[in-house]
Amino acid sequence: MPYRAPINEFSFIFDKIVGLGDVTSTPLFEDASHDVVTAILAEAAKLSDEKLAPVNRSGDEHHTVLENGVMRAAPGYGEAYQAIAEGGWVGIAARPESGGMGLPMTVASAVNDMMGAACLSLQLVPLLSMGQIEALEHHAPDAIKELYLPKLTSGEWTGTMNLSEPQAGSDVGALATKAEPNGDGTFSITGQKIWISWGDADFAENICHLVLARLPDAPKGTKGISLFMVPKFLPDADGNPGERNDLRVVSIEGKMGLHGSPTCVMEYSGAKGWLVGPEGGGMAAMFTMMNNARLGVGVQGVSAAEGAYQHALAYAMERKQGRTPVEGPGTIVDHADVRRMLAESKCDIFAARCIALACAAAIDMGNATGDAAWKARAAFLTPIAKAFGTETGMRVSETGVQIFGGMGFVEETGAAQYYRDVRVTAIYEGTNGIQAMDLVARKLMDGGEAAYALLDEIEADAEKARATLPELAEPVWQATETLREATEWLVSQGDLQDRFAGAVPFLMGFARVLGGYYHLKAALAEGGEGTRSRLAKFYIDRLLPEHIGLLTHARQGAVDLYAITHDDLVA
Amino acid sequence: MPYRAPINEFSFIFDKIVGLGDVTSTPLFEDASHDVVTAILAEAAKLSDEKLAPVNRSGDEHHTVLENGVMRAAPGYGEAYQAIAEGGWVGIAARPESGGMGLPMTVASAVNDMMGAACLSLQLVPLLSMGQIEALEHHAPDAIKELYLPKLTSGEWTGTMNLSEPQAGSDVGALATKAEPNGDGTFSITGQKIWISWGDADFAENICHLVLARLPDAPKGTKGISLFMVPKFLPDADGNPGERNDLRVVSIEGKMGLHGSPTCVMEYSGAKGWLVGPEGGGMAAMFTMMNNARLGVGVQGVSAAEGAYQHALAYAMERKQGRTPVEGPGTIVDHADVRRMLAESKCDIFAARCIALACAAAIDMGNATGDAAWKARAAFLTPIAKAFGTETGMRVSETGVQIFGGMGFVEETGAAQYYRDVRVTAIYEGTNGIQAMDLVARKLMDGGEAAYALLDEIEADAEKARATLPELAEPVWQATETLREATEWLVSQGDLQDRFAGAVPFLMGFARVLGGYYHLKAALAEGGEGTRSRLAKFYIDRLLPEHIGLLTHARQGAVDLYAITHDDLVA
Repeated sequence: MPYRAPINEFSFIFDKIVGLGDVTSTPLFEDASHDVVTAILAEAAKLSDEKLAPVNRSGDEHHTVLENGVMRAAPGYGEAYQAIAEGGWVGIAARPESGGMGLPMTVASAVNDMMGAACLSLQLVPLLSMGQIEALEHHAPDAIKELYLPKLTSGEWTGTMNLSEPQAGSDVGALATKAEPNGDGTFSITGQKIWISWGDADFAENICHLVLARLPDAPKGTKGISLFMVPKFLPDADGNPGERNDLRVVSIEGKMGLHGSPTCVMEYSGAKGWLVGPEGGGMAAMFTMMNNARLGVGVQGVSAAEGAYQHALAYAMERKQGRTPVEGPGTIVDHADVRRMLAESKCDIFAARCIALACAAAIDMGNATGDAAWKARAAFLTPIAKAFGTETGMRVSETGVQIFGGMGFVEETGAAQYYRDVRVTAIYEGTNGIQAMDLVARKLMDGGEAAYALLDEIEADAEKARATLPELAEPVWQATETLREATEWLVSQGDLQDRFAGAVPFLMGFARVLGGYYHLKAALAEGGEGTRSRLAKFYIDRLLPEHIGLLTHARQGAVDLYAITHDDLVA
Repeated sequence: MPYRAPINEFSFIFDKIVGLGDVTSTPLFEDASHDVVTAILAEAAKLSDEKLAPVNRSGDEHHTVLENGVMRAAPGYGEAYQAIAEGGWVGIAARPESGGMGLPMTVASAVNDMMGAACLSLQLVPLLSMGQIEALEHHAPDAIKELYLPKLTSGEWTGTMNLSEPQAGSDVGALATKAEPNGDGTFSITGQKIWISWGDADFAENICHLVLARLPDAPKGTKGISLFMVPKFLPDADGNPGERNDLRVVSIEGKMGLHGSPTCVMEYSGAKGWLVGPEGGGMAAMFTMMNNARLGVGVQGVSAAEGAYQHALAYAMERKQGRTPVEGPGTIVDHADVRRMLAESKCDIFAARCIALACAAAIDMGNATGDAAWKARAAFLTPIAKAFGTETGMRVSETGVQIFGGMGFVEETGAAQYYRDVRVTAIYEGTNGIQAMDLVARKLMDGGEAAYALLDEIEADAEKARATLPELAEPVWQATETLREATEWLVSQGDLQDRFAGAVPFLMGFARVLGGYYHLKAALAEGGEGTRSRLAKFYIDRLLPEHIGLLTHARQGAVDLYAITHDDLVA
């Protein structure tokens, strides 16, 4: 049951849902013609289907191991990574002057989706490098850019993010790693970092660590944090990997999933580093990388969902069990509850993918036009794309296990791997709770302007669709009104705790309504008849109504929540 | 962060929610005085906290292995099992004439809840034996009863269920294992069985397999199935384990979780067996065992949720991260979203536990009074208890991982074990989809009588509560009306597919409303002030509204679902 990249799905979403045409009409992306994009999708599909999917099970079965300080990736990973690097995929969204293809994030996200569905553990390597490339493009001094960017975009070197420390996970401001000036413009970095994905890789010539640390006498909290480039091997005069830097992988975490991707504890013992961005500007630089990564992780959720869904669908099409109520092959796909599970999964994947790609398109429009409204749209959609994408990954992979029945609980089928692997995506790059808090606090600091602009757009489109597809358009319009009221309620809460108390249900309710909107657009695009219209009807009739419960929850505030005491929770 | 059995919770639910007093007022259960029950809870808590919880991690870390045909349970399991056996816990609900304590299923379910929370893998051993004991009590000839029941209730011997075969999982009627008469009243059993939990155990003297098989010339389908007792060792003249029977464990499945419990492929090669129940009556006998086990598995879901919740709560109370918005220890329990996750978990565990214990109490009342209405109530609640209990297990253990953040994805904390272990409970003993189909088809064959009786009871209680607790009573009453309409809609569908299409959402919606009812009762019991009232308000305001989306989904029917073609799902 091999993975097949859904390239038609991407083309459809590009053309009919998120307006890639508007992106590629801008001077910045004018080279991304329709033909180029089509060719890119086809090539990425080939890479994913033929090179990456075949090593997916290998990473789960063999794990990555640390032997005498040397990291050994799973069998096949090295070759698969070379295929990614040689295809230029790491640099797909990097600027041409960095050695990249300069393609829109929308297209890069579709490529990440395919690579992630094929092999999530390995796809994390280019994803991290992409985030680092963007951070360097925006914040690094020219010398660093010239030295590192060509190596990163070519995939010869790989990138990591080093934020967390044992007492500073979600609270980055608490970190204690130190950076002492060496007097020659470089710094000595000392401290321990945790949760470093791909902290080492035996298939890369060099590993480029972007490390958050504090300069001496820096203020407490996030304002005292600076960002440093700390490579595993110090580049020599020719820019090639030279002397070994004073950093090492101390240990690898024993995780529930994503075994192919080593999660490292890193020790920096006076390692040489170079400042990226201004002193004390570490968080701003890191946010560039994190925003990129947040969308990327949301896409990972969608991709794991796609992989799990295809895997379960193939099984459902083949597995005979009991009498089926309709004529056909007599396989479980024709049992009502199995078909419900598959239809739910299919509909949610579409919704989550559209949200992620709409976010990517907004990023592209913001970059291409500089328009604040597009930037605000991108910022608003990022936490939704991250949290709903990864929630969808969990739900669909859970459903995939369920469709396999007992065989889903047995590791050899592979259904369990999707379920275990994707679990971390709801946690890393900021837990989904952190995403929701970001949404209701920072992303509503504009008084709801970005949110309302999106709601206005949905209602205008639903209004227009009333004439042709009233049974789909009306519930979407109604749901959007309910969402508007919930948004207004949140915006009007002066105490942030009242927003935080319902942040996750609000985010999920927002995503449910957005999903209805994109399904409606899909049905409209085919004139209300066909595959997409049938799926839209399923989603709007059966899944969209969940917004009512979620948005009711979102509006309850913090008082009753904090009335529940510690003793109440223990009792 | 050790497990502490929540005995006050059980006492409260016994007294105020499910009416254990009515059960123990019947002649059948008159020995189960309040003092006896209190002592039983205390002893079971001691067993769970001190003997079972300490071996929980061992089963996950060491797995059970098959070495040269010999099964080796995880270190510590043997001693822990002896503690269960010696305490008489296997026979807690067995009849006194079987060597049991004759206590109500309600009490036994609380004991199972505690044992399961402490060590789910091991608790499966007594759970399976309990089901077998009940099946033998109801269906076995006297000779079998006299020989096996004392050994099973004492825990010296353990029991298994053998239903599934490679092509007959959910479709039991397709099984092919043969039973040939030996001419001496015994039978030769030949065939392969899969998914046999604890198909062997090195801490039991004998393993008693109840095996479904077909007699020669038996009709096809479920009517041709008979049930046989097939022990690992043939009892000798004194009833002690004698000659080795011709059966063996072929292999153990490599599973995602529940590693301490070996899931076996069993080969019967002309093994000697004895008929249990009439020829062709295998399914009826097996259903006795399965109904018992379905409630038992629902309780497993609740128990895993309790274990995961306590584990996550202890972490949340200790872990410092970021600034908390209220005065206190500055730990993450005081972050709004963490508290929301904990409150949701706490409220859902209460709801699921009340449903399971209400089901158990109905079983007890049915057994004690013979009243058809109680039996119908028990039958109706069983699939809800199973599916909602295990769904709660999945949701709460997922939340537990989330509360741990990155540490939840790392195996050493143990949060992941709950998540992996509980996953199978939504699958085995009939997947949750099968439970939901049972609910909307067989359990509504009475025209909805059992369902409406329950809804009438809720509305009458809510009606009474309106005067004192209107803000809790009114939403529960309203939700019950919505549920009544959905039930009426389902009952009126002549084509079962129209019910099946929304079966799972209906079951979950029903559970949501039941949960509201039990929370309301809990608040009433303390006069609307205190811990339970605060939790009830949280549940009713924030979680109960989910029923709207679920019950809307439940009423959509099969037409649009089957309009989605195979090609639509693939596209």
